[in-house]
Amino acid sequence: MGSGESSAVANETETRIGHPYAVSALPKLEEGSVGLVAPQRLVFQEGLTLASGVHLAPIEVAFETYGTLNPTRDNVVLVCHALSGGAHASGKHHPDDRKPGWWDLYIGPCKALDTERFFVVCVNVLASPYGTTSPMSTNPATGKPYRLEFPEICVADWVELERRVLEHLGIRHLHAVVGGSTGGMRAFEWAVRYPDWMDKAVVIAAPARSSPMVIALNHIQRQAILMGLEYGGEEGAQRGLALARMLAHISYLSEDALWQKFAREPHTDAEYWKVLYQIESYLEYKASTFLQRFEPYCYLYITRAMDTFDLGTTYGEGDLERALARVQVPILLVSFTSDWLFPPSGQDEAAQILRKLGKSVIHEVIDSPWGHDSFLVERVKPQLKPILKAFIEE
Amino acid sequence: MGSGESSAVANETETRIGHPYAVSALPKLEEGSVGLVAPQRLVFQEGLTLASGVHLAPIEVAFETYGTLNPTRDNVVLVCHALSGGAHASGKHHPDDRKPGWWDLYIGPCKALDTERFFVVCVNVLASPYGTTSPMSTNPATGKPYRLEFPEICVADWVELERRVLEHLGIRHLHAVVGGSTGGMRAFEWAVRYPDWMDKAVVIAAPARSSPMVIALNHIQRQAILMGLEYGGEEGAQRGLALARMLAHISYLSEDALWQKFAREPHTDAEYWKVLYQIESYLEYKASTFLQRFEPYCYLYITRAMDTFDLGTTYGEGDLERALARVQVPILLVSFTSDWLFPPSGQDEAAQILRKLGKSVIHEVIDSPWGHDSFLVERVKPQLKPILKAFIEE
Repeated sequence: MGSGESSAVANETETRIGHPYAVSALPKLEEGSVGLVAPQRLVFQEGLTLASGVHLAPIEVAFETYGTLNPTRDNVVLVCHALSGGAHASGKHHPDDRKPGWWDLYIGPCKALDTERFFVVCVNVLASPYGTTSPMSTNPATGKPYRLEFPEICVADWVELERRVLEHLGIRHLHAVVGGSTGGMRAFEWAVRYPDWMDKAVVIAAPARSSPMVIALNHIQRQAILMGLEYGGEEGAQRGLALARMLAHISYLSEDALWQKFAREPHTDAEYWKVLYQIESYLEYKASTFLQRFEPYCYLYITRAMDTFDLGTTYGEGDLERALARVQVPILLVSFTSDWLFPPSGQDEAAQILRKLGKSVIHEVIDSPWGHDSFLVERVKPQLKPILKAFIEE
Repeated sequence: MGSGESSAVANETETRIGHPYAVSALPKLEEGSVGLVAPQRLVFQEGLTLASGVHLAPIEVAFETYGTLNPTRDNVVLVCHALSGGAHASGKHHPDDRKPGWWDLYIGPCKALDTERFFVVCVNVLASPYGTTSPMSTNPATGKPYRLEFPEICVADWVELERRVLEHLGIRHLHAVVGGSTGGMRAFEWAVRYPDWMDKAVVIAAPARSSPMVIALNHIQRQAILMGLEYGGEEGAQRGLALARMLAHISYLSEDALWQKFAREPHTDAEYWKVLYQIESYLEYKASTFLQRFEPYCYLYITRAMDTFDLGTTYGEGDLERALARVQVPILLVSFTSDWLFPPSGQDEAAQILRKLGKSVIHEVIDSPWGHDSFLVERVKPQLKPILKAFIEE
């Protein structure tokens, strides 16, 4: 952390004096880690009635928390993970874990989501393979994994399950809900579905409704998995998932980022139809590691939930303005210039409607070559951290 | 055609007086069609030694011509087709053809490439399934289709075959070489490989070297075909080609274009894993029609030739500036703002180098929401036609 950033943190700490959420301990000036954390688990035997009307039971949920819930239970920040993320957002499970949680850059002492002040909760979504009930869970009706018998799910179902977990923890109100990508969709859905449940919402790299480009890219990814399944069974589905992940991966990057990272660098061990260039080798590598940690069936369900995300349809009978009129709290929208999956134009649409409605909205467009994934990229932190921290702590 | 455009054509016709390429007949003022055209065919029994060193023989070539070769044989415009195009660039083969050739918008009497003045030639490339020798042709060594035994090809091989056809027609010089997309790659390669063979070159929506984004998208498309082949044989390869075409298709469009054409319009006959939205149905339809006219093996070879396209490597020992120093004629580069497959930045790189070298270069960036395919879209013609026509006729 550069000295410029340290002093910015120091200043923010000063302005914190007398702030309702200030903790009694002396404020730290340097970022720290939440350290070792334990995965947590809940089972709702009674399950949940999904937006589709189907009742799913039982439901197991994986979640994690960082920081301390204060006695008045009003220092809670809900963090919403993206497609391939999970509840493990910060710290490590074991000292020898190679990597910390997916948003360790932003969750911890003195970080953008300061765990000295806030109690941060992250809940793994339905259909994700990281501990929450998913197509890989056992269907009690058959004794076998659900696979394609798993019910259709949508972003609202994810929000409902998050709310169940919060209520179980005795939480009835959020200081903030924060999310990026599909997590940003959840944050947005929270702000519209439960407008009096929070003080503020942060939507990073996500629009108020999925674009036809997102649907198109997801369609191809799903068809790759389904084709693999049809021709090659479970192994084929894995191969299809590898294709899907490669396509998703380039949709998270950008033209500029690919030039900077790979240019036209040849691969040292070239094979004409397999890999001639480093970019190909990189995509294959990323796909192979993804196969070790994800499931084709989960991928199908989660991408379809992304596609059907449209706040206008769910809350405004097709009218986005009517849906966004439900929002009662300040919203921070953050876009990245080179994000072509969820481009700034999608957030601009929402920002313009919110402004027209007289809502409190800030739309920050961060100049970054790192595409959709910018909110996960360390080099973008100097730009994103002060924006997040100021909005959340203000 | 609007009256504004008619008068622009009239003005251009006036400035043509005394032009070396003016034809003796009275100039027409209204665009016309080249009418019915016949596919032409040549066989080079002696074949061609490819850039890889492999000798391929025999080679059959499909080509077409429009307009009349003048006695001095100096009114020739070579038009280079894109990935899925062929030699049939203008007019119709039969009166009841549903569609004319792929660039009928721009080739014909009074069009951008005015067949009253120019003799336009279009040659189908090696490895394409439209009449030229390809992986689907019979390998004389085995009596069976080459398929993956077809030799590796590159853009320079395509240029060599075009030159052979021209020489066969008694042509030793081009007034202009014009191409879009992979056809633009050929036009660029022509200008660098045979700088004294032409008076001018037009490169539309193509850079001087393929980007890692192009390689990445092509890689995924090829892997879809190869996966289909591995699991499902020839039928599987077709399914893989359908996936590839869907991905290619969205890379030819743009965020804006998809919103304008499809938005989030639901499909009337929805099926959860197959199609919920119009954009999905459209992609599936486009893929199915593509399967009727293309071949998976051809697709593999042509996309790999795109990937390896790098004038710096071929002519400058890795240095693009050294390669472009070979150019001797004015070059017109045309980009489209919403083209994310071959974005304006790629052409800008080439334009800057050419300018630095003191070459005559014009880089026109046309504001269009129709993405990479803009050069094929009728709505873009009012912008593109005058630029092309002025440069070619000047």
